[in-house]
Amino acid sequence: MSKIIFDCAISLDGFFAGDNRSPENPMGGVSPKIHAWMFKQKAFWKHLGMEGGEEDGADSRLIEDVFARTGAYIMGKRMFEEGEVHWPEDLFKADVYVLTHEEREPWVQQGTTTFYFVNDGIHNALEKAKKSAGEKDIRIQGGCDTIRQYLNAGLIDEFFIHITPVFLGSGVRLFDGMDKDKYDMQIAEVIPSNLTTHIRYKLTKK
Amino acid sequence: MSKIIFDCAISLDGFFAGDNRSPENPMGGVSPKIHAWMFKQKAFWKHLGMEGGEEDGADSRLIEDVFARTGAYIMGKRMFEEGEVHWPEDLFKADVYVLTHEEREPWVQQGTTTFYFVNDGIHNALEKAKKSAGEKDIRIQGGCDTIRQYLNAGLIDEFFIHITPVFLGSGVRLFDGMDKDKYDMQIAEVIPSNLTTHIRYKLTKK
Repeated sequence: MSKIIFDCAISLDGFFAGDNRSPENPMGGVSPKIHAWMFKQKAFWKHLGMEGGEEDGADSRLIEDVFARTGAYIMGKRMFEEGEVHWPEDLFKADVYVLTHEEREPWVQQGTTTFYFVNDGIHNALEKAKKSAGEKDIRIQGGCDTIRQYLNAGLIDEFFIHITPVFLGSGVRLFDGMDKDKYDMQIAEVIPSNLTTHIRYKLTKK
Repeated sequence: MSKIIFDCAISLDGFFAGDNRSPENPMGGVSPKIHAWMFKQKAFWKHLGMEGGEEDGADSRLIEDVFARTGAYIMGKRMFEEGEVHWPEDLFKADVYVLTHEEREPWVQQGTTTFYFVNDGIHNALEKAKKSAGEKDIRIQGGCDTIRQYLNAGLIDEFFIHITPVFLGSGVRLFDGMDKDKYDMQIAEVIPSNLTTHIRYKLTKK
């Protein structure tokens, strides 16, 4: 059965994004730091149909696995607006549901990425994403507010955290505002690497 | 050569201690949650000269290793006061330097633990601890304020974090107030476990 997941890189001090986020400064400028491990992976660039990266080990396998298992994405309006002007065409290669109050026609990209703009809440977005995903999983892409909404609604089945060995000092913390008593949590998998520490957690709603 | 280390359990949302810390409520009551993995380890109870625990795997090896490498401890006054009334006799089995403004004679316990009360700052405490430790390492035991002072003075060589799969939601964060630009950080070791994720980081002062 299809799972609802998320997958985020954070700094060792727990930050998902920096301060002063905007389309001109996506993720508050922290992506080169917390995603450094990802940009080194051949699998990441291969997914984009590009040559790049020099690493092809466990980190690359993980990237391939997460792309392969994901059949649809859900993201917040702010993440979409920060990414819209920067992301390469057909980055997601699946249907992407954007939570927004804006009414907008779907944006069909070259390839297999289509952005749909959903105005009727997280549960309806999830139902639509489930239809797109079929047997595959639905990934809550971000940002933090969107992940927190799905977490606090008790809807997340598992997630990957990539703890990158860097301190950011300030910004947006992934788990701020999280309902701490919503789930029982178990460590499902740890993938050591010298670039970042990948941990997969399973959640069971209490 | 002797290293300066620390070793802390934190929740997945980054908390080292809970709210409302006091001798009546040491660590804000979070120890049963973030140290659950430790209390299950035979090595922990063996160190206390007691029978206990049911686990004897990689987590226990790590506990033995950290006790074996540590030749002296430094801690803040608040941690000392929270622990003083609760810790079993001879918990540390080494010299422990307590940073305080209080003048007090050393407290020599049964066994090999002696608490010394140091009034002249973190650098002098460290020099004293180095003499006690000999070839072994000096562990900055806590709390967060004390660890942060040594971190921000550029004095820490490496540290272990045990990321326990629990959310606390509020409390004292280990890395709050950390000078984010003080060190280059590398992942030195990851010890996976289904109880907690042990990560050892090496620091190089910039």
